[in-house]
Amino acid sequence: MTDHVGHGVMPSRRIGIDVGGTKAQGVAIDRDGSVVATAHRLTPRGEGSLEPLVEVLADLAGELDHDASVGVGVPGLVTRTGVLRAAPNLDGVADLEIARLLSERLGVAVAVDNDATCATVAEWRLGAGVGIDDLILVTLGTGIGGGMVADGVLHRGVNGFAGEFGHMVIDPDGPRCPCGRRGCWERYASGSGLAMLARDAATGHRLRDVVRRAGGDPQSVRGEHVQLAARDGDPEALAVIDDFARWVALGLSNLTNAFDPAMFVLGGGLAAASDLYLGPITRWFTELLYQPQLRPVPAIAFARWGPLAGAIGAALLPELA
Amino acid sequence: MTDHVGHGVMPSRRIGIDVGGTKAQGVAIDRDGSVVATAHRLTPRGEGSLEPLVEVLADLAGELDHDASVGVGVPGLVTRTGVLRAAPNLDGVADLEIARLLSERLGVAVAVDNDATCATVAEWRLGAGVGIDDLILVTLGTGIGGGMVADGVLHRGVNGFAGEFGHMVIDPDGPRCPCGRRGCWERYASGSGLAMLARDAATGHRLRDVVRRAGGDPQSVRGEHVQLAARDGDPEALAVIDDFARWVALGLSNLTNAFDPAMFVLGGGLAAASDLYLGPITRWFTELLYQPQLRPVPAIAFARWGPLAGAIGAALLPELA
Repeated sequence: MTDHVGHGVMPSRRIGIDVGGTKAQGVAIDRDGSVVATAHRLTPRGEGSLEPLVEVLADLAGELDHDASVGVGVPGLVTRTGVLRAAPNLDGVADLEIARLLSERLGVAVAVDNDATCATVAEWRLGAGVGIDDLILVTLGTGIGGGMVADGVLHRGVNGFAGEFGHMVIDPDGPRCPCGRRGCWERYASGSGLAMLARDAATGHRLRDVVRRAGGDPQSVRGEHVQLAARDGDPEALAVIDDFARWVALGLSNLTNAFDPAMFVLGGGLAAASDLYLGPITRWFTELLYQPQLRPVPAIAFARWGPLAGAIGAALLPELA
Repeated sequence: MTDHVGHGVMPSRRIGIDVGGTKAQGVAIDRDGSVVATAHRLTPRGEGSLEPLVEVLADLAGELDHDASVGVGVPGLVTRTGVLRAAPNLDGVADLEIARLLSERLGVAVAVDNDATCATVAEWRLGAGVGIDDLILVTLGTGIGGGMVADGVLHRGVNGFAGEFGHMVIDPDGPRCPCGRRGCWERYASGSGLAMLARDAATGHRLRDVVRRAGGDPQSVRGEHVQLAARDGDPEALAVIDDFARWVALGLSNLTNAFDPAMFVLGGGLAAASDLYLGPITRWFTELLYQPQLRPVPAIAFARWGPLAGAIGAALLPELA
């Protein structure tokens, strides 16, 4: 027997979909929080892809379950009524009323939020932050996204745009950011930031082993080359990891001053190499923290859910509304 | 007739005390939020001043009303149970259980919080932010303090230490901060920051009129000299104000990315010269904001309550608990 949506009774199955620039990842989770099914579709690209996008999401939801609540995570600024204002990685999206369109198509209420906000919900409710009422998730991917929970409540901001930590400026004379400003945190502390720090080191005739792995051209060095060399114990690669960790920790320290969380959960692509990063990030964080003698040092954990976090958190959105 | 404290019934009068390094400012406010009495005492200084401090606060509360709720704001990190962990401007204070000690002395429950948190409450409930559910207060004084309200709830942080915006690092190679790090926001965007920017300009042979006002020595230039010259239209002084405003706006822009508030309220000593600062700060804020085309620009207002904000907010603390 299946409960019906409404009046606080949740259906037995909850569907979540995480829309990325390349694919839309779907999951179905059951009442106890287990992932019972996954499926995905390619994200429609190019001109005129908005209508196909809604169809693809409806089709994906239908494959997973026909009688479930639905939540969707999308890569961009989402208003509190589920309008996607803009998404750099989805062609032509502007003011897409995705919650309304998909809800009309499926005949159930659909909750929509930013993908990093969804990942925050996943880690808070079913992941690394279970039982923690004050936490901040930071996704270290190509850029930096994030979300936060304060006193047991997901903090969305007045417009729904809270958690854009990556564009906090931490070095006004730093490298130019595609957003038009200089020295945004994600210029240093993301996957792109790691690659930049590595190329800077390589151009300065350090990182010889890493440059060799990258085929000999310092400009071809990527974060993955640094990670591989660091795992083999290359001291020059480890120094770049340490520099990167300091930039990550600087931002976490800033967020601690502002927000005073109990825990940070680090997600995104770099979380897959958490063994390389946890030590240096934790060491720098303790070093950079304001008045560490007067406070417990916030815990730093890596995300549990990896690439499924966005979809799992999306599935949980309807019960937070 | 006077109601009694407890069971959600508030007394008709509420007493608030703001403890500063020099004096303790008290206010009594009545049921409709009007300030009906003020009084102050000198803050006891030197060794062995903790017991006298509690006595002075009890005496001040007694002068204002004998049958009122009591809240206290203090300049330092305060735990969520009213323990003052440390206060640079109060001699020898460490782990002072000020809420418990004063409550025992007065025979009523006493709520204690950080002074900038109290100012946040004053402006939110009775000042520039009335009716706004998502706001951030930033005090521009000798340093920078602050507080925030999210979705109609005062955000204290897991330890009670949220809102320490002044020690967010925005320039890792910047000037050394007494906290031990470099380039904290308050090195630039506080009263001390304005003075530093002015001395830097004066040492570089700019600000000739300001240096003359300061007696001829660039190292004697203070923020007040810059303000006076700026009011007289001195372009070099106005350029320093503009530079200062850019640093203020940079931090506000960072806080917008993280929290997405509807309004900033600027308080502290510099708020007294709001006519000089509001224009340049607003201009730079709009310039530095992330994706301003996709969001309403948060409002920037100056605090209504000036030097009484801390005491008024302290008076309101018991009803937030």
